[in-house]
Parts: sequence; structure tokens; C-alpha cells
Amino acid sequence: MSRQFGKVLIVNLDDRASRTWQIEDQKCRQFIGGAGLAAYVFQQLAPDPVAPLDPANPFIALTGPLTGTAALLSGRHSFAGRSPQTGFWGEASVGGHWGRELRRAGFDGLAILGRSEEPVYLYLNDGRLEIRNAGHLWGLDTFQTDQALKAELGDKVQTCVIGPAGENLVKFSGLFTDGVHARTAARCGLGALLGSKRVKGIAVRGTGEPPLREPEALKESAKALLADFTGRLKGMSEFGTPGLVGPCESIGDLPINNWRQGRWTEGAKRIGGQELKENYLKKKFFCAGCVVGCGRTVAGVLDPLLQETGGPEYETLGMLGSNCLIDSMPALLRLNELCNRLGLDTIDAGAVVAFAMELKEKGLIGPAELGSIDLDWGNAKAAEELIELIARREGFGDLLADGLEAAAERVGGLAPEYAIQTHNMALPAHDPRAYSSIALGYATSSRGPCHVNAFSHMFERATTFPEIGVEAVLDRFASQGKAEMVVGAQHVMYLWDSLAMCKFNIFGGVRLHLVGQWLEQATGWDVDAAELLEAAERIFNLKRVLNIGWGWSRKDDRLPLRVLTLRTNDGGAGDHLPPFNVMLADYYKIRGWTEEGLPQPETLKRLDLA
Amino acid sequence: MSRQFGKVLIVNLDDRASRTWQIEDQKCRQFIGGAGLAAYVFQQLAPDPVAPLDPANPFIALTGPLTGTAALLSGRHSFAGRSPQTGFWGEASVGGHWGRELRRAGFDGLAILGRSEEPVYLYLNDGRLEIRNAGHLWGLDTFQTDQALKAELGDKVQTCVIGPAGENLVKFSGLFTDGVHARTAARCGLGALLGSKRVKGIAVRGTGEPPLREPEALKESAKALLADFTGRLKGMSEFGTPGLVGPCESIGDLPINNWRQGRWTEGAKRIGGQELKENYLKKKFFCAGCVVGCGRTVAGVLDPLLQETGGPEYETLGMLGSNCLIDSMPALLRLNELCNRLGLDTIDAGAVVAFAMELKEKGLIGPAELGSIDLDWGNAKAAEELIELIARREGFGDLLADGLEAAAERVGGLAPEYAIQTHNMALPAHDPRAYSSIALGYATSSRGPCHVNAFSHMFERATTFPEIGVEAVLDRFASQGKAEMVVGAQHVMYLWDSLAMCKFNIFGGVRLHLVGQWLEQATGWDVDAAELLEAAERIFNLKRVLNIGWGWSRKDDRLPLRVLTLRTNDGGAGDHLPPFNVMLADYYKIRGWTEEGLPQPETLKRLDLA
Repeated sequence: MSRQFGKVLIVNLDDRASRTWQIEDQKCRQFIGGAGLAAYVFQQLAPDPVAPLDPANPFIALTGPLTGTAALLSGRHSFAGRSPQTGFWGEASVGGHWGRELRRAGFDGLAILGRSEEPVYLYLNDGRLEIRNAGHLWGLDTFQTDQALKAELGDKVQTCVIGPAGENLVKFSGLFTDGVHARTAARCGLGALLGSKRVKGIAVRGTGEPPLREPEALKESAKALLADFTGRLKGMSEFGTPGLVGPCESIGDLPINNWRQGRWTEGAKRIGGQELKENYLKKKFFCAGCVVGCGRTVAGVLDPLLQETGGPEYETLGMLGSNCLIDSMPALLRLNELCNRLGLDTIDAGAVVAFAMELKEKGLIGPAELGSIDLDWGNAKAAEELIELIARREGFGDLLADGLEAAAERVGGLAPEYAIQTHNMALPAHDPRAYSSIALGYATSSRGPCHVNAFSHMFERATTFPEIGVEAVLDRFASQGKAEMVVGAQHVMYLWDSLAMCKFNIFGGVRLHLVGQWLEQATGWDVDAAELLEAAERIFNLKRVLNIGWGWSRKDDRLPLRVLTLRTNDGGAGDHLPPFNVMLADYYKIRGWTEEGLPQPETLKRLDLA
Repeated sequence: MSRQFGKVLIVNLDDRASRTWQIEDQKCRQFIGGAGLAAYVFQQLAPDPVAPLDPANPFIALTGPLTGTAALLSGRHSFAGRSPQTGFWGEASVGGHWGRELRRAGFDGLAILGRSEEPVYLYLNDGRLEIRNAGHLWGLDTFQTDQALKAELGDKVQTCVIGPAGENLVKFSGLFTDGVHARTAARCGLGALLGSKRVKGIAVRGTGEPPLREPEALKESAKALLADFTGRLKGMSEFGTPGLVGPCESIGDLPINNWRQGRWTEGAKRIGGQELKENYLKKKFFCAGCVVGCGRTVAGVLDPLLQETGGPEYETLGMLGSNCLIDSMPALLRLNELCNRLGLDTIDAGAVVAFAMELKEKGLIGPAELGSIDLDWGNAKAAEELIELIARREGFGDLLADGLEAAAERVGGLAPEYAIQTHNMALPAHDPRAYSSIALGYATSSRGPCHVNAFSHMFERATTFPEIGVEAVLDRFASQGKAEMVVGAQHVMYLWDSLAMCKFNIFGGVRLHLVGQWLEQATGWDVDAAELLEAAERIFNLKRVLNIGWGWSRKDDRLPLRVLTLRTNDGGAGDHLPPFNVMLADYYKIRGWTEEGLPQPETLKRLDLA
């Protein structure tokens, strides 16, 4: 075996020195890889405490031991660091082809420390690092930057870049790979973290292969699953995540009118997966190692020469669409492309636009802030104008660029009530009033309100989840059993983010014992499901400990007041409100935490985190 | 008729000018009197906004149209102003003999504006006002001050004074009447408000009678009730409020060990009403117009010459006793007398001691803060030493004197989690985990967490309350029906505080139609129960509007995290946690408020508050 998993390139921009760090195998086994191992790497490299925009805050990229192998849906990787948006743990995982290419270039991870004086980009080419001037790229959008890098370095490079929003330290700016196909790691403002280091992008190219102990066995095992697997994910393949818009609307899960409305059936039809498929879809997009192709490819809008670009996901349609009452698919394709090019998270962008629309409705802002922008509900052109201002930090956009909570505090009055966020980060497009467990998942997620940290709602209504002990279908409105479910689901999901592999594996039928087998074939670790879940619990608690060091306590396990106290009534969630405090009490107990939400010393000791 | 109800003496200490304001009859009918009319008076007299310790913040005292009449339990009055403790609406109602004497002196109310250069006291003697130097009284405790005033002015004066705590602007210092019998209007820090004006006390003496239209009819009507009334309140007469300690412990309503423990049966016996009656009670204390005598008179402790003094109430026993794990009745008699003399609220004092005990337990404070004070759980001597430091604002006591929230923020770390308060004011000794409706009552009370603003728990378990539409006995742990109940109960209780009459009238069987009859006999208003409840709703909403002007919104309708998320488990409340957010949503709707907790314009218009 040429090398083990865990080879991380550490680059310091202050002195442009770099070194390779081979993380010891035992630590890799304890933290797996991806977003899990990233927390360990962070803890080893970062001063304590480090401010989010301090040059010493490391920007971390990590793949997993199965990234780029024959394991199904294994083409993902994670970015991490202390979040400029929330001030707490920041991570964003994403698919595409960049992670696999990083491993082919000879590295499993990358950590960037310090700050460059001039704009630069990094080029990793088969084990070699170059730090190159990026003065000519600064100010370009993400598509243009990818194009320019490919022109310089050849078509085969994979790039991860930031847009103008990241350069301007917009708090909800992200990282973009796969060029015009725009795979986005956009939550937690890690685009601003890279921007603060004056790094426009990271190009990677390699001709090697990731280390594997039994590549043939792994390939065989994956192949054997294929038919059954793709059968189970047929709907996702056909409609992508936009296929969720209709079903989510029908059960009251889709945010509408800044989380105030329960029903929007005609609108949901106009922005749903069926509409997208029938009238706009050019082809599917597949990440590395993918056999599903949930990604949508559509024609470009902003540049008439652009033949193909990444289409909107469910989250984008929910946050920029229904939540802003924008019901035109062409308008949403345009807004999606705009955010991707400027380098913005579409979840926070949609939430900020809806927030500003409500500010205008309530008379808290007017012409003085908006100029000629006619920011009425459903006005897509106005949304576009506002998003441009945000990315460029011009006028009122400069204030919104600091995130929902920061902006609302400066607007004053009741504005914080209309900012549907916690920790300065927008709630994603699943409504805690539609499923009790989401309430708990949002509140206790390590990285701020996140729908995929627990993903528990996927199991709450229709299926059991025996892998984590959920043997009966639960009542989605009840509190009973939800804390157990969320704890279990968080472990499973943190594991997949650490692998870093696509969670749709779960819906394809991949169980943890099989993951253990793949890991053994890749690394030699003889891990079973129990050890994997324990690793996930370790990872979860390490992130909690990091957050606690930055001031997190029970008061931060919270939800916006609107979803706790406003009933939507007329929709599929009926008059349900999540019984939040009751579930949270259960949750602490199950986690072995104090009533203040701190891990007990014995819990940390059990997890080898003492 | 010599005069109407609504004659208020306005004193300005800046120029020592005074004038009489006869409030128009229509306004009196709309706001009744007491704590209700005080809000109207405040609105008329105070600049908007006014800081709590600004000389322009009026100190208001108001009786009701039945104060000092033959109406049962009518010997009460209210104090009010913007609270130095919470920064929001502040009021405290109390019994005793001061209010009746104020009316005999020819006034129904009093408002003090401005600030004196030198310490003074006010002397109202049969319509005449004197502002006298109080240099010789400054620094005396409340008992000594009362004694000195009686030596100067004669034994027949009734005094309302502050102690050293009020002089030192301790945020939970109160107002004390009836001398050694210590009737205390101690919540909301109105002692500090009077202290900030450099007023040590207000002595009143009068030989007149309150205006009444049909005194004989009123007397007859009250008399006719007597036998049945006193029969219903026999238990209260025999044991006073200390009789509640045992029953409250048994249902999980008594705070124990800073709200962490559910069961303390032996301790509760040692500090309960039976023990007090058998071994310490000298006689009962009756407020003016009282036929029950729930007040306890016991021997003095701190001064061996003191034959009689006011004994502890349930709240004192709960907050300084069980909540601090102090289970000695002699120790509690001593702590009660100490707080009364120093001029402190025993609810906040107990909460602050328990908070400090937990800080010590958790290692957040130690010898540097406490010196030689051995602040372990249950140590009454240490509690006494700490309370002395608070009243004198010495050492660590200076920090605690600013109130729970302010102190906790300065201690830092997790200290805010151990401060069981909202708006810098301690939760009183009834546990929201024992009855769901208390949760809502505490959170929405105009004056911060208050058990008597809704008093709904008195009806939640065992009785119906047809007067407010509660026709069935409700499940104390459920959320259903609780918002309706709390809204109705708040109206009834706000009415009694506006009358200002004792709420035990309810338990004696006095219904609102009878109150209307008494009011007609006193004032000529032909008011029925519906009009009285509408007045209460008007008063409730006026206070809400005042609070909103000072920044209150839905975020302020809250509870401490401990009572929302920590189960006591082993006690009478079992594993119950109040389903708070669900009830709050109902509550806003019933009140005709927006989802942000603001009264709708049409609600205000309906109540003639537009």
C-alpha cells in the first residue's frame, strides 16, 4: 500500500511555507474523515480561541477514506473552520468532482492558515503546491473564475472558488466547485473565510488513485447493490430534490411568505420538480461515484452563450421561491444562477430577501433603504437587485450582507422577529411545525440550523429506522420518542458527513455494517456499526465542546420565536407547534449532558475526548 | 357627597410644589383605582420614555374606591412606577393600614415627582402636606424608622418607609408599612424608586372618611356575607399562607434547591404552617377591613425587646427556605425579620441566596468573592451574612444587589443558567412545572414573573371558575384551555389589584356582580361584571403598551430555561414540563395581539386606548 488515508497538506499563507501531515491511523479511525476528522484537525491547528476572521482560523478541506472509490455516492468532501457567519463551528459538505481530484493529486485533506497580502489561488498538481497570484481573477464571478483557471491550467483541473460575495466577506458566502455546474458548499459562510485569506480558489489535478487495500472486493460489493439501489432512488433520479416541493407543501413543510403561510398549492406546482423536468431540464448531473444523478442541468440564463448550468435544488426553490412568494420557474432559475455566480448561499439569500420584504411590508424600511427597488412579495426582479447589492456590499445590501441576526439588530424595532434564523444563520426550507423532530435537529445542530445534520424528518412520518432503534412509525406531531430519534439520526448523519459520502445512500439501502465492510476494504479498520456510531457520537461531542469554548450553552439550543409560536393553520401542519422544551430535556438526558447542555465529564471520557 | 374618588396629591420634590388632581370620574370608572388607575396616572405624568432612576419617573401610590370601606378585605393599596429592577412596568400592592389612612387624610392617591437634595420624609395630615428633613432617619431600618416617625408624629400615624436597601438602590428593595408588622410591597424594586428620590418614608394621618354614596347599604351587604365568607377561609385564617408549604411540596409546586429538586417532604414539614402555628404564632394580623387574619404575628428575633413582628409568608418560606435548603423555622423567622428590617423583597432575596449557593457549588465564586462566608446549601447564617452585604452594597453583595440577571451577566460563564429569573426579577415560589398555566401567567405578567397576576393555578387542579368561562376542572399538566383560563384569570386579578382589594375575596365567594354592587354603592357607577372585566382588559393592555414602549415584545414573554427544560422527576410534578410555546400562541390569539405580542389597533380601539 502506497499510503494511508489521512494525508493533509498544511499551507501557511503568512510565510508561504507548506508541510504534509500524516494523521495517525488511530485518530482517523476515531474521527473517520470529512467533516468529522476536520474537527480534529481544527482542534490540532487552531489557537484557542481564534476569531473567525483571524488569519489563524484554519480553512480546512477534507475527503473521507472512501472518497473517489467505487463505494456508492462517494464523491463528496467537506470544508470547515470557525464560521464567520455564526461564530461557532462551521462546516459545509458537498458533492461534485473536486474531492476525488484532491485525492488523485495525493492528498486527503488541506488546511490553509494565515492570510496572503495579495489575492492568490492555490494549485495542487500531483503532489506539488503552487501559490499563484490571482489579481486577474479578483472580482470575477464563480463561473468566470473556473473558466479562467481552466484556461490557465488545462480543462482537467477541478476548481473550488469563491465569488464576489466571498471576496467581500458576505456572511453567507460559500465555496463553489464544478464550474458552471455549481456544486455549492455554501452554509456557514466559509466563502468569507477563504476570502479573508485572500484566496480566490483552489485548483487540483492528479493522476494517482486513492489508497485502497482491497479495491476489487470493494468494487464487487458496490456493484452487487446497484440494481436494488437505483430502483429505490428512482424518484430522486427523475425529479432531483425539486421533486420535494409539492409533497413538502402538502404536509406543511415548505416555508411560505417568510414562514407565515401554510398553503400555496398552485405556486408549489409552478416551481416544483415536475415543472422543472418537463420544461427546463437538459440533463442530470452526477457527482463522482454517483449512480443516481439528482443534480439538475438547465440552460444558462444570465449569459445567452451558457449552454448548461446547475439547476436549483429544493432548498433554493423553497427559500427564494415559496418563502418570497416568487412562483415563476424562469425567475428562480435566474436567481439561482445569480447566487451561484456571485457565490452566495441560496438558503440565506432567500431568507434575507423574505426578511427584507417583510421589513418593507411592516414599514420598517422604505425608499431611504431600498431606493427604486420595488421589494414587494413575489417580485423576482427586486429580489435580484437586492442580491446584487448584498454580494457587492452596496447600500442597504451592505447591512444585509452581515447576516439575518446582525442586520435585524441594526434595523431595530421588531425586525429581529422577522429574521427567521438562529446564530445569524437562516433556517433551511423544512418547517419544524410540520415535524417535531426537525425542531430538535435545528436547535442542536453543531453548525447552526441545518436540515441534514439529523435529517430525522425523512423517517418521521412514513418509515421506521431500526438502525437507530426506531422500530415503529412515529406520530410526526408528538414529542415522544423524538429525542431518541434525533440523537440516533444525528449520529448516522454525522457519520455520513465524516465519510464524506452522500446521505442518499441511506435511502438506497446502504446499512452501516456494509459501510464498515467498505471501510475495512479501504483502510483495514475492522469497524462494525456500533464502532461507527460511537465515532459519530465522539465527533458530535467534539463539535459541541468546540462550540462551548466559544460560549455556546443551552440558551443557544433554540429556535426562532415565529416557528415556536405562530401557527400556519391552513396548511398540512394544521395548528401544530413543536413541543420544543420538552424534547430538549429528553435530548440532554440521552446525550449524557448536564441540564445546561454541557457534556458530562464521564461522557467525554467514554468517548476518549477528556 | 363631599368628594368623588380620584383625588391625587402630586408632589414635586424639585421645587417642593404640590397640587391636587381630581381625576375625572369617567377615567376612574375606566381604570377603577389601585394598580389599574396607577397606570393611567403614570401615563399622564411621566415623560415618554423616562428612565427608572430619572427624577421624572413618578412614584405613585393609589387606593381604590372601596379602600377603607365596609367592603370585605378592602384595606389594600398599590404602589407603581417604572421599575428600577426590570426596566418595565412596576407595581406592588399590599395590605395593612396605610391606604385606609391615606383616604382618611383626604387623598385617594399620591404621586411623587422629582428628587430631593437632602433626605426627606412626607407627612400628610388631614389634607395638609409637609416635606420634612429625614437626615436623622437615613440609615435606620424599617422598624426603627417607623418607631422614630411615631415618636415625632404620634402613635396614630401610618407609615410607609424604605430600609437601608432602598436607600442604597438595591434593585429588589421594597416599601414597608405597618411598622414591626411589616406589610411589604416589595416586588419590582419600588423601594429603590423612592430611595432615588431621597424619600425615606411617607407618614399619613387623617380623621375623615372615604366618600361613599350609600355607606349603610354597603355595610349591610358585606355583613350579610360574613358567616359564609369566614367559613370558606377558615384554613387561611388558621395557618396563613405558610399553610401552603406542605400541600405545595406534595404536588411539586415548591421550589427546592434552586429549582432542581422535586421532593423535600421532611423539610417542608419543618418550615410549614402547622409548625409555625404550634410553636411560634403569637396572634393573627388583620389588615384594615379584614375578617380573615391570614397575617402571622411572631416574637421578634434580632432585638430581644421586640415582642411582636410580622411572621413569614409562604413565599418567604419557599424562597429563603426550601429553595436554599434551609429547614429551620427559627432561622427563617430571623431571615424574614432581617429582610423586613433592611427593606428587601424576600422572594428575590431567597432567589439571590440560592443563586449564590449554586455559584459556589459550581465553583464560579469562592473565597475571593465570599471571604469567610460559608455559603453551603442550607447554611442560614451564611445567607444572613450575604443579605447584610447586599443591603449595604458591600463586597460581593454590591453585585448581587443589582438583581439576578445583572449579577449573573457579570459573573459570566454559565451563571445566567443558575439565575432563575426573567427581566432581572426572581420567579416566585410556585413552579411552572407543577401547573401549566403558571408558565403562561409568569411570562405574560405586566410586572415580570408574578404568581398573583393570574393566580390561575389556584383554579387549575381542583375547582372550576365559571366567572371566566372555565366550566370544567382542567388537567394541570395539559396545555388545552390554559390560555383562555389565564386571560380570564388575569382580568379578574387585575381587577382586584385595581380595586385595590384582597384576592382572597374570591375564595370567600365574592363574585363580580357583588363587586359591581359595592362600587355602585360607593361611587354611583352602575357597573356590571362585564364592564369590570372590560376595565381589567383595558388596564392589562395599557400596561402592555407601556412595556412595549420600553422595548417589550414576544421575546420578553419568556421563562427561565431551567423550568422549561429540567425535570424534577422525583416530586409531585413528575416529569412534567410546561408546553409553553403552544400556550403562548393560543394566548396571543385570544388577546387580539399580533404574533409579536403587540395589541392589534382594533383591540386598543375597542378598549378606548387608541
